[in-house]
Amino acid sequence: MTAQPPTASVRHDTVQVDLRGIYAGIRGQTVAIAAPLAPEDQVIQSMPDTSPTKWHLAHTTWFFETFLLKPHLPGYAVLNEAYDHLFNSYYQQIGSPFPRPRRGLLSRPTVEEVLDYRAHVDSAMDALLGDPSLAPLIQLGLNHEQQHQELMVTDIKHALSVNPMDPAPFGPRRAQRAPVSPMAWLPFAGGLREIGHEGDGFTFDNEGPRHRHHLETFALASRPVTNGEYLAFIDAGGYRDPSLWLAEGWTAIAERGWQAPLYWERGGGVWTRYTLHGREEIDPAEPVTHVSYYEAAAYAAWTGYRLPTEHEWETAARGIAFGERGLDLAGLEPAAAAGEGLRQMDGAVWQWTMSPYAPYPRYRPAEGAIGEYNGKFMSSQMVLRGGSCATPRGHTRATYRNFFPPDARWQFSGIRLAKDE
Amino acid sequence: MTAQPPTASVRHDTVQVDLRGIYAGIRGQTVAIAAPLAPEDQVIQSMPDTSPTKWHLAHTTWFFETFLLKPHLPGYAVLNEAYDHLFNSYYQQIGSPFPRPRRGLLSRPTVEEVLDYRAHVDSAMDALLGDPSLAPLIQLGLNHEQQHQELMVTDIKHALSVNPMDPAPFGPRRAQRAPVSPMAWLPFAGGLREIGHEGDGFTFDNEGPRHRHHLETFALASRPVTNGEYLAFIDAGGYRDPSLWLAEGWTAIAERGWQAPLYWERGGGVWTRYTLHGREEIDPAEPVTHVSYYEAAAYAAWTGYRLPTEHEWETAARGIAFGERGLDLAGLEPAAAAGEGLRQMDGAVWQWTMSPYAPYPRYRPAEGAIGEYNGKFMSSQMVLRGGSCATPRGHTRATYRNFFPPDARWQFSGIRLAKDE
Amino acid sequence: MTAQPPTASVRHDTVQVDLRGIYAGIRGQTVAIAAPLAPEDQVIQSMPDTSPTKWHLAHTTWFFETFLLKPHLPGYAVLNEAYDHLFNSYYQQIGSPFPRPRRGLLSRPTVEEVLDYRAHVDSAMDALLGDPSLAPLIQLGLNHEQQHQELMVTDIKHALSVNPMDPAPFGPRRAQRAPVSPMAWLPFAGGLREIGHEGDGFTFDNEGPRHRHHLETFALASRPVTNGEYLAFIDAGGYRDPSLWLAEGWTAIAERGWQAPLYWERGGGVWTRYTLHGREEIDPAEPVTHVSYYEAAAYAAWTGYRLPTEHEWETAARGIAFGERGLDLAGLEPAAAAGEGLRQMDGAVWQWTMSPYAPYPRYRPAEGAIGEYNGKFMSSQMVLRGGSCATPRGHTRATYRNFFPPDARWQFSGIRLAKDE
Amino acid sequence: MTAQPPTASVRHDTVQVDLRGIYAGIRGQTVAIAAPLAPEDQVIQSMPDTSPTKWHLAHTTWFFETFLLKPHLPGYAVLNEAYDHLFNSYYQQIGSPFPRPRRGLLSRPTVEEVLDYRAHVDSAMDALLGDPSLAPLIQLGLNHEQQHQELMVTDIKHALSVNPMDPAPFGPRRAQRAPVSPMAWLPFAGGLREIGHEGDGFTFDNEGPRHRHHLETFALASRPVTNGEYLAFIDAGGYRDPSLWLAEGWTAIAERGWQAPLYWERGGGVWTRYTLHGREEIDPAEPVTHVSYYEAAAYAAWTGYRLPTEHEWETAARGIAFGERGLDLAGLEPAAAAGEGLRQMDGAVWQWTMSPYAPYPRYRPAEGAIGEYNGKFMSSQMVLRGGSCATPRGHTRATYRNFFPPDARWQFSGIRLAKDE
Repeated sequence: MTAQPPTASVRHDTVQVDLRGIYAGIRGQTVAIAAPLAPEDQVIQSMPDTSPTKWHLAHTTWFFETFLLKPHLPGYAVLNEAYDHLFNSYYQQIGSPFPRPRRGLLSRPTVEEVLDYRAHVDSAMDALLGDPSLAPLIQLGLNHEQQHQELMVTDIKHALSVNPMDPAPFGPRRAQRAPVSPMAWLPFAGGLREIGHEGDGFTFDNEGPRHRHHLETFALASRPVTNGEYLAFIDAGGYRDPSLWLAEGWTAIAERGWQAPLYWERGGGVWTRYTLHGREEIDPAEPVTHVSYYEAAAYAAWTGYRLPTEHEWETAARGIAFGERGLDLAGLEPAAAAGEGLRQMDGAVWQWTMSPYAPYPRYRPAEGAIGEYNGKFMSSQMVLRGGSCATPRGHTRATYRNFFPPDARWQFSGIRLAKDE
Repeated sequence: MTAQPPTASVRHDTVQVDLRGIYAGIRGQTVAIAAPLAPEDQVIQSMPDTSPTKWHLAHTTWFFETFLLKPHLPGYAVLNEAYDHLFNSYYQQIGSPFPRPRRGLLSRPTVEEVLDYRAHVDSAMDALLGDPSLAPLIQLGLNHEQQHQELMVTDIKHALSVNPMDPAPFGPRRAQRAPVSPMAWLPFAGGLREIGHEGDGFTFDNEGPRHRHHLETFALASRPVTNGEYLAFIDAGGYRDPSLWLAEGWTAIAERGWQAPLYWERGGGVWTRYTLHGREEIDPAEPVTHVSYYEAAAYAAWTGYRLPTEHEWETAARGIAFGERGLDLAGLEPAAAAGEGLRQMDGAVWQWTMSPYAPYPRYRPAEGAIGEYNGKFMSSQMVLRGGSCATPRGHTRATYRNFFPPDARWQFSGIRLAKDE
Repeated sequence: MTAQPPTASVRHDTVQVDLRGIYAGIRGQTVAIAAPLAPEDQVIQSMPDTSPTKWHLAHTTWFFETFLLKPHLPGYAVLNEAYDHLFNSYYQQIGSPFPRPRRGLLSRPTVEEVLDYRAHVDSAMDALLGDPSLAPLIQLGLNHEQQHQELMVTDIKHALSVNPMDPAPFGPRRAQRAPVSPMAWLPFAGGLREIGHEGDGFTFDNEGPRHRHHLETFALASRPVTNGEYLAFIDAGGYRDPSLWLAEGWTAIAERGWQAPLYWERGGGVWTRYTLHGREEIDPAEPVTHVSYYEAAAYAAWTGYRLPTEHEWETAARGIAFGERGLDLAGLEPAAAAGEGLRQMDGAVWQWTMSPYAPYPRYRPAEGAIGEYNGKFMSSQMVLRGGSCATPRGHTRATYRNFFPPDARWQFSGIRLAKDE
Repeated sequence: MTAQPPTASVRHDTVQVDLRGIYAGIRGQTVAIAAPLAPEDQVIQSMPDTSPTKWHLAHTTWFFETFLLKPHLPGYAVLNEAYDHLFNSYYQQIGSPFPRPRRGLLSRPTVEEVLDYRAHVDSAMDALLGDPSLAPLIQLGLNHEQQHQELMVTDIKHALSVNPMDPAPFGPRRAQRAPVSPMAWLPFAGGLREIGHEGDGFTFDNEGPRHRHHLETFALASRPVTNGEYLAFIDAGGYRDPSLWLAEGWTAIAERGWQAPLYWERGGGVWTRYTLHGREEIDPAEPVTHVSYYEAAAYAAWTGYRLPTEHEWETAARGIAFGERGLDLAGLEPAAAAGEGLRQMDGAVWQWTMSPYAPYPRYRPAEGAIGEYNGKFMSSQMVLRGGSCATPRGHTRATYRNFFPPDARWQFSGIRLAKDE
């Protein structure tokens, strides 16, 4: 049996003086995601891009230990010296990270020992949570932890998907099967626009500085592309027509044998997919997900439209309410879009944009190791906007920039079309 | 805390009418080896050649289910249909095995579920254990299980060795540190010899047919090469002198950076090695182990002697008592050789011979899938003779032929020298 | 002995009615580049990204055969049916290209047979060169051929560089060794700028459509970074400081062991580099070249400045004269910059920008196979601007967009710094 | 146009006092094999196991320079210092060989320069050819050169086979198409046999020492397996039945997609194969060739028979005349066997034995670098006996041991069956 994790989010409008409640809520959510899993599930790593569940449990804890406790809590006693090496993800300025592709070979510390580590750090953190000067770093740690909550879901989905037994650790999916509203085009005027975050709330450094960007007029699709629409692309031979594909994409589908989104299988004339609630038949009304940028771009080319730029997407997203839907352990797949207007900007699937991930004008990463958070990944990746059914509620906003390599498929990544007007 | 598994062995001299006690003993030993491990330890697979502990627990059970219960127990109900695919090792004639290098990605069935599977099969097997016509197959299954007991030890040692925390699941090693007896040469006359098994007891098919083989006179070293002797080879630059190495071996040490046996590390002027009892300093009196055939051959070349052929080894081993030492969970490293005469033919390290693994004259594998047991591996491997500190007592004999590729190092493989007389 | 190829260029200001002279000139240049090479040199391919010289000779010919002669010359007789498969580079809509990494395995057709193929096609092309309706396609073919002239130089440099004999097929380098002018900062005002090509002359489709882009004020370095300046970065430990590198770059230098630009070697306390004129000592006054985007970005980070965006670069390049320097077989390395103002925007090294290669707003590739020319490569590559010492004169312009993956080093790629103002 | 190379062979019965004629003959044969090739053909290397033609031309010359001229000819002047590194094959005790997989990247020295190198060495060798004390080394050099003559043929066949143009550098094949004699079983008595070379003639060190080996009675097939017989195996599903294959072989055919011998293709219902005389239809009467050991063993298993051991083969070959057929540039494929009795022990295909390549009892390699010739390859290879249509006449004998890894297919390797009696 699985349950909805306790609701908690970082408030973005004011600096928190006392983050105790929020800290407890988010840290508890992380444990709640892992709770339905067996210890065995929490060890495995199915590809170099993913990490074991217990590694996420430990790494998010390491973050608080490294950036808060060690520098700011006099007398803080480390629980285990080895953890610093084992649970550093990629901060080259802080020791040497354990090689990422080998994280799945670490049976020790066990899940229980990792939970002890969490308790040890949480207990020590209590003394720092009321310090206003540390609130920005703590908020960063909590947003970092929310990002890993989503990765825990997508990584465990990938890991369990390779098991022919189709494990369903989160139990049956809450009944969905709803009709989808028709796709409409919503127009937006061009001109010089302000892009990027402004104001007091928490943001990642890559969301700024706010700057001007010129846009031509464009229109955005009211909702993401559905499984049914994507199936039409497959049935029309989309995966066999090189004129639709980027050169890299054509090579990727040839070398890897891609014929459909990740987790899809065809058998007995029926398309099914693996989900964390077990294998299910494809619902044509639900948004297509687990597609790479290559597939998103090829699909768009097939329709005659295109993907939006991240600037277009953000411009359209101004004024939209974010965070109403998101991570729900009883429904770890995106639901069909309902209603009029701009739907599912978040809460269903991340939306590939045609914008490579690059720094905004005058962007500078923070000094020190914390500056490795975003800036050093600004090559060979594409920006996704929005938020998915695995993104914790309250985590995203209009200016949020997610990014993955163009061949990544294990995130809940989908497609929203755009066109010139 | 670890303990010696309950003693049990297959008796080789007569066909057992009722194998209940032996079956229970050996099946129980397997579980006892895994008992000190955490569930997390039992999932991981550190290289394609090894398997997770829980896979061994399940595969040995699958063997009885596949070759005994399904064909011979009317009404036998399979516990889970998926297990046949997951736990078939390499029997191509029986369905399709799950890919070996991906065994470490299977978190399900969990350890607990695998133990349930063992109980299910053991319970069903009870009806067959008294049937004399099935005794040969049951004995094969039990000897097969003993082979996997040794692999459980060597595979988990490899898996835990990659963890920088140096886990010691079997607790401290029973105190060893004993002097080693000097190496002596024991001469053996040449002539036409009988090689291979003869008699009633259980043997693997590759140990026969018994046949004649001509030998020149030779001498065999009284005991295996020690760590101290091997250190002299390292210190003399043995790993840097191409004239000592097979071409393949020279390539292997260059590409993989081998400078010492597997698990050895040098730091602060001291050589240490990982063991299942934790990291320990190298004891020069103990037999060197975890060397490849390439290293064994290079060491022999450096001494001016050579490795024995398997025929020489077997000729020398006639009349030696086997099975007095072997798997002991409180001492999972080979001890220093003591005493005069031919010592440690088993119970310490498997001994690389210079004989490639090939069929004996007139050898024919058994009909059907069971014939895949040995014969199909007769290429690109070398024969090892003897038995190691991880081999269950009573499992080996003078005619026993173990075999591994020449680059394998994760077994307890060592060196016994020979020379022409 | 090598000589300067006959001067020839495509004029961009008017549509040519009769392209005979230009066609003959450019086609002749291609042959002149290969002339000093032995047949053996023209076969080899030293990595998947490069092609053999004779493949370039044939492929540029295939282009005219495929896009001009076959569709537009009634009765055109193909010389050899096999060539269509062998010399198609990547046009998936036209048959199936021979696998790129295996081009170096094709000894046949021989160099002589390829030159026959060129003569066959040139002879047939004569009938089409006066047709104004075909002039755009012919111009595309000629510009395409010029691009391959540069690749012939860079590919053969890479191929010969792996030979420990340091071949110097182009003879001694024309004496260079000149002082370099000091680096100065040239400021440019921000605001809404027009980017992309406009007018009648030939351009590639990726240079348009012309569109508005907002820039902040910035400054551009007056000349490229020199070898001497780059050596200071090396000596300061630039290759060992992870804080300077993109994550991908840090991985690249670790995995490939990069410690300096491609072709550099250090021996006896002296840095030398391989050139097509033989091995020579590094001249600190000359522009650094054969660096990847990762190295360019790390160098920029070390200085505290940054690379320009392609929009900044193009804005600064407006009004600059292009094409005065370029491919010269007697001097196949970039010379030291001399003089005041913006120097060496072309003719020395391609300049990495911080702009990922992406379509301009409202860009659409051409219909049909010719549309595969540029658009399908718009992922995971970075834009370089300018032109190098291997770029044919008259080939580039302010709006020209070159593009390579961020790890590419075998082009004459260098660094020009920029900064915010 | 191709022609039969001038006949020349090393006489084995007496030590030559003056080897001038033989030296000139064999050295000339080598050049004659390369003569029909274009320079472009002589550069390419299609896989790591093969070498470019011009590398063979140079390496065989290097052998005389290194082992004869440098140590034994006072005042010998090296032509080019770089050649020692470039043309050392694998003698680790003499400097460092240029990496084998990269030999195809060496365009320089050119073919012409390599022929100059041959002339330089041949001229210098003249002074040593009359020295009886050097005759053994010179004979080794000449036999070494003959081995490379065969490799030149098989390597260039592999290299040209990847070219879709099916080059036929040796012109049309001399008409063959002859009937094949029926296969008969020839019985041989068991007992203690003498194996290995004895006497004065030249042999390689791995053919001795002569020693006793016990054999059971056996029978040998009168001729090799034909294409027609092998086709029956293919048609019967031999490549899809795992029970016939060694485990390694089953993996090899799965991973590499083998469905037939190397060079075979099926199109339009017809099997054809690439030959150095162009593509031709499979002749069912000719011996099957270009099969791996895995395929040979699987074929034998399918027939119910087996491959011979090398001891059986040698015992049967005693008294057979060797060297009557062999390398003939006008017919570079094995012909159909004609006549009664033991046919085609050489001159058609090398015959895989079931014997792994291992040292004979009391074998010791020669001292120094020359000792690297054979001994260091004694692991993971199988012995082939006989000689092929590409083996120079007079090169083989009953005791000759050829050896290749079990997956090698580019030699003229075939199958002769054996059975127990």
